[in-house]
Amino acid sequence: RVNGQRLWDSLMEMGEIGGTEKGGCNRLAATDLDKQARDLFCDWCKATGCDIAIDKFGNIFAKRPGLNNDLPAVATGSHLDTQPTGGKFDGVFGVLSGVEVLRTLHENNITTPTPIEVSVWTNEEGSRFQPAMQGSGVYVGRFDLQKELDKTDVNGLRLGDELARIGYLGEEELGSRNIGAFFEAHIEQGPILEDEEKAIGVVRLGQGIRWYNVEVQGRESHSGTTPMHLRKDAMVAAGKIVTEIEALANRYENGLGTVGFMQVYPNSRNTIPGNIKFSADLRNPNPEVLATMHEEFVAFCEGVAKDRDLDISVDNFWYFAPVEFNASDDVKAATEKLGYSHMDIYAGAGHDACYMADLVPSGMIFTPCENGISHNEIEYSSPEQCEAGANVLLHTMLTASHR
Amino acid sequence: RVNGQRLWDSLMEMGEIGGTEKGGCNRLAATDLDKQARDLFCDWCKATGCDIAIDKFGNIFAKRPGLNNDLPAVATGSHLDTQPTGGKFDGVFGVLSGVEVLRTLHENNITTPTPIEVSVWTNEEGSRFQPAMQGSGVYVGRFDLQKELDKTDVNGLRLGDELARIGYLGEEELGSRNIGAFFEAHIEQGPILEDEEKAIGVVRLGQGIRWYNVEVQGRESHSGTTPMHLRKDAMVAAGKIVTEIEALANRYENGLGTVGFMQVYPNSRNTIPGNIKFSADLRNPNPEVLATMHEEFVAFCEGVAKDRDLDISVDNFWYFAPVEFNASDDVKAATEKLGYSHMDIYAGAGHDACYMADLVPSGMIFTPCENGISHNEIEYSSPEQCEAGANVLLHTMLTASHR
Ligand SMILES: NC(=O)NCCC(=O)O
Ligand SMILES: NC(=O)NCCC(=O)O
Repeated sequence: RVNGQRLWDSLMEMGEIGGTEKGGCNRLAATDLDKQARDLFCDWCKATGCDIAIDKFGNIFAKRPGLNNDLPAVATGSHLDTQPTGGKFDGVFGVLSGVEVLRTLHENNITTPTPIEVSVWTNEEGSRFQPAMQGSGVYVGRFDLQKELDKTDVNGLRLGDELARIGYLGEEELGSRNIGAFFEAHIEQGPILEDEEKAIGVVRLGQGIRWYNVEVQGRESHSGTTPMHLRKDAMVAAGKIVTEIEALANRYENGLGTVGFMQVYPNSRNTIPGNIKFSADLRNPNPEVLATMHEEFVAFCEGVAKDRDLDISVDNFWYFAPVEFNASDDVKAATEKLGYSHMDIYAGAGHDACYMADLVPSGMIFTPCENGISHNEIEYSSPEQCEAGANVLLHTMLTASHR
Repeated sequence: RVNGQRLWDSLMEMGEIGGTEKGGCNRLAATDLDKQARDLFCDWCKATGCDIAIDKFGNIFAKRPGLNNDLPAVATGSHLDTQPTGGKFDGVFGVLSGVEVLRTLHENNITTPTPIEVSVWTNEEGSRFQPAMQGSGVYVGRFDLQKELDKTDVNGLRLGDELARIGYLGEEELGSRNIGAFFEAHIEQGPILEDEEKAIGVVRLGQGIRWYNVEVQGRESHSGTTPMHLRKDAMVAAGKIVTEIEALANRYENGLGTVGFMQVYPNSRNTIPGNIKFSADLRNPNPEVLATMHEEFVAFCEGVAKDRDLDISVDNFWYFAPVEFNASDDVKAATEKLGYSHMDIYAGAGHDACYMADLVPSGMIFTPCENGISHNEIEYSSPEQCEAGANVLLHTMLTASHR
């Protein structure tokens, strides 16, 4: 069994890096704070006898040798970057559960049949740079390395430069780790486990995601002198689309739709906005439904552009197809062995394990979080809930290593 | 008669300070560029024999002595600050028409019965700091000097500090100029004079304006895991209000409604926005209609807050009541004397003359602008249109000085 108190203490210590007044965490990818978090992770792993490797996209791999180091490692991992108003658990819980597995093995002098590996993936959140799960996506070959290194944040800073600046642009080739299976522990980020009073969610599916960059090009003019019928108001066009996204999501079972990001130009209160850039995020566990949502969304935007005689471009730059986790039975078996209550569940968020499932048998372990709130500074999981998840991770990995 | 070519050359020279690629101007109030524009204005006025005074809010007064310097001056003026995507004419045309009046008197060795004064008012645009017509509003006592000096821009910079930094926080008391009448030349900023093929608009009224700061407080949460019915999405609430403002304005004759400014927090595409701040700008020439629009707007926001179980605060921090110009007959007489085509018109935008009308008989001279477009880099008036306006200003001021 893992040491729940130690896991909790590490979560709290890591949470201080970028810690906010409201008890959350603001630690965007490839910032100085991300560097501090990565350094701490590396120190902790080295103390359990791990070797550290860093790949050309800044993904970190801490490997603890096993009996036969030619065998593929059993791996776990998640991310240390957070949302701007993020919590202490999203991603970090998965990484530190991995560290807790390493420490448990280390203090019990256990040498596993295969190596055990814990990874930290670059920019899982997709907040500072897009898309999300970028590090694991590049690792498995879904995205082009150079193209992703060239991505810039809202201030025009390049991800590759930022990784080099914080000392985490490594030499290891992408996709080159010798890994046999991948498991990721994560807080659920939704309300279901808590509602159903289950300790563990056995994740069967990651739902489909479509991300868009929408740009409305209207015409700047004076708010006090431009008659309503002569306007090309980018703000009202954007407002129509924002409200439609909610209506669209509500029309479909399990549909979700969100506009989280918006930039208004020139953003002056007596100038009718001439240009607005915003994001759209559509999700559904059913790929056909998501495709229909996509079509309706694009058609709606086209309609607004036509009705209002302005230009709207809709760039669906990321489609993440729903993924099935083919190693979830291993998670379920470990959960039952340990006697935790559990249920099958699907992941609403994207996770690094979703991309790792391209390469190796993968599974995910969900733990409840308070009121289902995540991407919020008040995000919370109890020490007991975290401990249960880490125990399931430990035993899932041990079983896989002995197989 | 004024020298139209000289006026045009000065407009083009001034337009280079903050000039944009698209031929417009980005010269926000109390910036380094504003300082350069003010310095150039002072140099030009000194060359015509003016004394320069600067008051405690950074308003500049250039006074050309007359026969009797105890008599109140006949004054003109406007502003040199622009929108972020502004043009070369809005405000600047009025200031430089004043300079052209000074130059015309100077080169013809005319000594007017009363002094002639040209003013530059601080932050007329209301873009960087709010409200608009801030310098003239403080001058006439509508706003409190200290409170306005303490206003901050989106980056938290204080207006008083910025004025001091650029060397334009003067010693002169507010409201202390000896002025007998005030006339302002300005481009119309709307389409009416062009449509009606008139050279001059005799401005009878400035319409009513209400400015609001609206803040929606929802709750941040995950875009992929938060079911639609559990959201407190500040973005959708803001979108509902944005689209209603258009509908509201369309319900009333001459109604205008605009959201020009919006700030989204935390502005991350997979976090449902928890907080959105935005502006609203409602206008109507009829104060009763504007009052009704105000009530409907506030009620709508309250309804959205109630329906969606989130907090919305609506701060109507500026009400500018419609103002009648009681010296417009002087403008009309000068226009007719010069033989320009003209019509009565009302001002859609606020202007410094609207506040000066509190203190002294005031009038405004409008000139056409291309397609009625203003607060846009492509804003344009022809040399002939500008010349006509400056001629009317010259003769209006001469008549008033001889009275
Ligand atoms: N786990 C998590 O919050 N991932 C961010 C990617 C997403 O938007 O789903
Ligand atoms: N003239 C002008 O554009 N003034 C700005 C104030 C307003 O919004 O009307």
